[in-house]
Amino acid sequence: MKLSFPFTAIVLEISMIVLFGFFVKYETEQNAIQQQLNITNSTKVDRSLELHPLFRDVHVMIFAGFGFLMTFLRKYGFSSVGINLLIAALGLQWGTFIQGILHHHGQTIYIGIKNMINADFSTATVLISFGAVLGKISPAQMLIMTIIEIAVFAGNEYVVGEIFQASDIGASMTIHAFGAYFGLAVAGVLYRPDLRRGHEKEESVYHSDLFAMIGTLFLWMFWPSFNSAIAETTEQQYMAIINTYFSLVACVLTAYAFSSLVGKRGKLDMVHIQNATLAGGVAVGTCADMEIHPYGAMIIGSIAGIVSVLGFKFLTPCLTDKLKIHDTCGVHNLHGLPGVVGGLASIVAIVFRASKASSVVMQAAALGSSLGTAIVGGLITGLILRFFVCGLSSTEFFFDDSVYWEVPRGREVDDE
Amino acid sequence: MKLSFPFTAIVLEISMIVLFGFFVKYETEQNAIQQQLNITNSTKVDRSLELHPLFRDVHVMIFAGFGFLMTFLRKYGFSSVGINLLIAALGLQWGTFIQGILHHHGQTIYIGIKNMINADFSTATVLISFGAVLGKISPAQMLIMTIIEIAVFAGNEYVVGEIFQASDIGASMTIHAFGAYFGLAVAGVLYRPDLRRGHEKEESVYHSDLFAMIGTLFLWMFWPSFNSAIAETTEQQYMAIINTYFSLVACVLTAYAFSSLVGKRGKLDMVHIQNATLAGGVAVGTCADMEIHPYGAMIIGSIAGIVSVLGFKFLTPCLTDKLKIHDTCGVHNLHGLPGVVGGLASIVAIVFRASKASSVVMQAAALGSSLGTAIVGGLITGLILRFFVCGLSSTEFFFDDSVYWEVPRGREVDDE
Amino acid sequence: MKLSFPFTAIVLEISMIVLFGFFVKYETEQNAIQQQLNITNSTKVDRSLELHPLFRDVHVMIFAGFGFLMTFLRKYGFSSVGINLLIAALGLQWGTFIQGILHHHGQTIYIGIKNMINADFSTATVLISFGAVLGKISPAQMLIMTIIEIAVFAGNEYVVGEIFQASDIGASMTIHAFGAYFGLAVAGVLYRPDLRRGHEKEESVYHSDLFAMIGTLFLWMFWPSFNSAIAETTEQQYMAIINTYFSLVACVLTAYAFSSLVGKRGKLDMVHIQNATLAGGVAVGTCADMEIHPYGAMIIGSIAGIVSVLGFKFLTPCLTDKLKIHDTCGVHNLHGLPGVVGGLASIVAIVFRASKASSVVMQAAALGSSLGTAIVGGLITGLILRFFVCGLSSTEFFFDDSVYWEVPRGREVDDE
Repeated sequence: MKLSFPFTAIVLEISMIVLFGFFVKYETEQNAIQQQLNITNSTKVDRSLELHPLFRDVHVMIFAGFGFLMTFLRKYGFSSVGINLLIAALGLQWGTFIQGILHHHGQTIYIGIKNMINADFSTATVLISFGAVLGKISPAQMLIMTIIEIAVFAGNEYVVGEIFQASDIGASMTIHAFGAYFGLAVAGVLYRPDLRRGHEKEESVYHSDLFAMIGTLFLWMFWPSFNSAIAETTEQQYMAIINTYFSLVACVLTAYAFSSLVGKRGKLDMVHIQNATLAGGVAVGTCADMEIHPYGAMIIGSIAGIVSVLGFKFLTPCLTDKLKIHDTCGVHNLHGLPGVVGGLASIVAIVFRASKASSVVMQAAALGSSLGTAIVGGLITGLILRFFVCGLSSTEFFFDDSVYWEVPRGREVDDE
Repeated sequence: MKLSFPFTAIVLEISMIVLFGFFVKYETEQNAIQQQLNITNSTKVDRSLELHPLFRDVHVMIFAGFGFLMTFLRKYGFSSVGINLLIAALGLQWGTFIQGILHHHGQTIYIGIKNMINADFSTATVLISFGAVLGKISPAQMLIMTIIEIAVFAGNEYVVGEIFQASDIGASMTIHAFGAYFGLAVAGVLYRPDLRRGHEKEESVYHSDLFAMIGTLFLWMFWPSFNSAIAETTEQQYMAIINTYFSLVACVLTAYAFSSLVGKRGKLDMVHIQNATLAGGVAVGTCADMEIHPYGAMIIGSIAGIVSVLGFKFLTPCLTDKLKIHDTCGVHNLHGLPGVVGGLASIVAIVFRASKASSVVMQAAALGSSLGTAIVGGLITGLILRFFVCGLSSTEFFFDDSVYWEVPRGREVDDE
Repeated sequence: MKLSFPFTAIVLEISMIVLFGFFVKYETEQNAIQQQLNITNSTKVDRSLELHPLFRDVHVMIFAGFGFLMTFLRKYGFSSVGINLLIAALGLQWGTFIQGILHHHGQTIYIGIKNMINADFSTATVLISFGAVLGKISPAQMLIMTIIEIAVFAGNEYVVGEIFQASDIGASMTIHAFGAYFGLAVAGVLYRPDLRRGHEKEESVYHSDLFAMIGTLFLWMFWPSFNSAIAETTEQQYMAIINTYFSLVACVLTAYAFSSLVGKRGKLDMVHIQNATLAGGVAVGTCADMEIHPYGAMIIGSIAGIVSVLGFKFLTPCLTDKLKIHDTCGVHNLHGLPGVVGGLASIVAIVFRASKASSVVMQAAALGSSLGTAIVGGLITGLILRFFVCGLSSTEFFFDDSVYWEVPRGREVDDE
């Protein structure tokens, strides 16, 4: 930690400034093309600013949503919300650059609010993966993982969107499934046998669970904006908002019902409530702009809530025991499975003619590409992190802020 | 709990999906009328999306605002924010349906953002009533209460708006007073004599009071959006924002002053600050779009702050002792009294010619209808809940998350 | 406390109502001029409402942002978030009046959303100063300080904007530097020798630091709206958003790096993360609407993050020891130094021709005026508060909610 972390951060920031100095300009400087098309700077800027309210919602999801969602661990709140901020700040810069280069074929990037939304999206992918390795990875490792994952993510996004021309407006496949399986692959490579027995610090306290609910609620409330932010027409945007809204409300009912059904003496589990209530937003993502009708969205949401709770209850323990993959936040249940459900739902929706623009084959190819790229990318990234970047020497330092943070004196009494 | 809760939730969700399958369509599918009026889908969707920022503010008030406002109890935070989410998710679906059926006379409902705002409003009513019975009612009971109350609410709203043609833009009467008196009536029927002596778990700890302030602040900040969301003209919207803003700021000053005046040795009480500072938003609701002038709004807000603090100090203990109505969150002081003040203020405003569209008689009728319907509806609902739905067997389980939730081990030490 | 606080609050609120009754009208009542310019009420109101989303972001920063940012002290959370709400509510009324009178030369003030944004800005200044005296000043003193400081602030803002015609869109100089040095001057006058040895209650606990992160994140996320809210053209607004965004992300990386560099064994310090990550928003404020290019914004942000962390580490202890100025929240490092960096950055930007509208001399004059007015105004205000307004009798009551608040029983165990 002593020097590797600040050194990595400073080198990365200097690199970003240099890259931006050479490649990134204001949208208003883009003169050649705009004059041909009779688009004035004012028009372009006005269109860009129309996206600002949606951008801001997505921004809140990234920083307050993901940040607080992960504060549920009793001794790892500083790192959850703090490292979330750090990697998001790096990811926003790197994502802006790499997405710009890919979409504009290596030339100058002209920045507008839409680029900022897309940069937030690329960051979301890393934050999902962060959930899988939460508490088991060093800040320096996370910085390196951010750089690699966003590059791989942008590559897959390019393949899915530009080559396959697949539909994925809410990014169930390219962000959620991708982020989850990438993170799980990294977690698999970094696995330590000690984790199988359970870790004494891997638990919540009463107030840490309430902090996590701040994250859950801001993600839940603004998910309609996430799924509609990059819609191309206002009709698609309208539809994405409506569908996401009804998928989410249905998901809450089934998540609560199944949390109680699988719980001891019918009791609800905060882990399910914090996470599975959001699965409806993930699962409806791919077909959010399709004509699936409100009841169709509600069916997707209901299924997502059930799948997610069952995943937490039965699959997560199994993953740790059998596959030796330890998934701290259960991202497989919130993003992985519901992301796959989202991809499959889009295929069903196309079969039922809810969309004219997409084809079953291309949606399947997009799902396959997202999963495949994520797993291979994650495995390689895990190996790089394991052998080349300074990590935690022992599992006794896992899930513990005091390794990286000055922690206030009063803490022991406060939390134990 | 074991089976009644999940069974109720699943049956309700299936019912919602079936109802939506038969009755609810996208706004863009509404072809017949629109072609006659030369309204294209794009125009309609664009108008709908203009409401999205306001919708989102109201949405935040419902989920983060109400949810965290009720987390002040030291052992009931999970239920406060969690059951809030559950009943809001059910209420949004049921409210969309029942309001749509009433306003469109039983035909197909075409969904737009305005319906989502109105569904949020119907849910707010239930959440206010929830405050009166907080900690004393089971999740299954709350689901049933949500269904009944929203139906009664929609009926009263129809009478007030369509038959009396009364003004109530910020819904002081139809949401706030209605929700409060409905909840108080339910609380009266469910009263247990033990509550009179005070309950050891009915208290806050330091951090639970800070969590509640998250709720207070998000309600306070977005109240201008709540009171202006369904304005029909931009001038009315502008006026509702300005009036609500100034009513709220004036209310804060008087709430603080009177909290100190009635406190021991001049000390402020967190209960007053969390609640009475919001009374200005409630009380200005009915006449928010009238020309009451900023100073008029400030007078209304000042009075609301005083009334609310005095209610908490003198009326709430009296309600429990004399009328055997135990009001956990003091919704009578935040929503009930200020809602009545709001109705009366609108009558005064009309007398002073601040509005041409409304009449004194109709405003009085609207206030009377809201109070009457709420009390009768609440009494009947209370009786249904008491005799037909599984509730808590003993007051020792009141105000305690561990009855319905897996509660983390560390909690006892953390909070006691 | 017993009577001085409620008496002050009530007198101030009555004064505000009287002032508003005489001087403040709706924008829609402004008939004479508008008819000459062919501006209808609808046009005016539409323009006003376009600002509503930006207003709301700034509003969230003022109440949730500043409010929670200051909750880091273990026994002073109620006062931080509560007194923040109180003085902001007063400041909004007084700021609306005094700014309106100054800009409209003593005639009637016609209120629109822009006035509400500017009132929020004037309040921000007081909240920054509040950070310097947090825990050491009584609510009654804060009310008086709010009245004086906003008057002085509005005077300086008038000089900078109208007379010097200087650029300061994000108000690095007129709000941040002004608020910080005003607060430091007050803190210097109110200094007590006991503070030098450190105060046992002037520390955080684990959860109070997490509450503070709520404030940090909402400030951080909405800062682009703060810096662009009063832009006159959409191009300037676009540029202010982009520049602020990239300054902030760069600032996070350097703040983390330097926090680790100056920490014991490379550990991060929550104080730095809560505050220094925001310095990029302050420092880019003055030149946010200039063509400094994204990489220019990133350089400014990087420098601000470094300056702020080094300020916390080396300058704050020095201020207390040598200059006898005790700065509770370190506002000098978050607002003071970065505000000065912002003023200097604007001079450099003008030298490099990033703006045609401003001159180096006028920017320097604006910076000088802001610092000078703040220090002189703060010294006088400190003297007034010290000798004429009831304050805390002994330092043992510092940083302690229980002096002004009924504090829940469970608290001692919860926090110590």
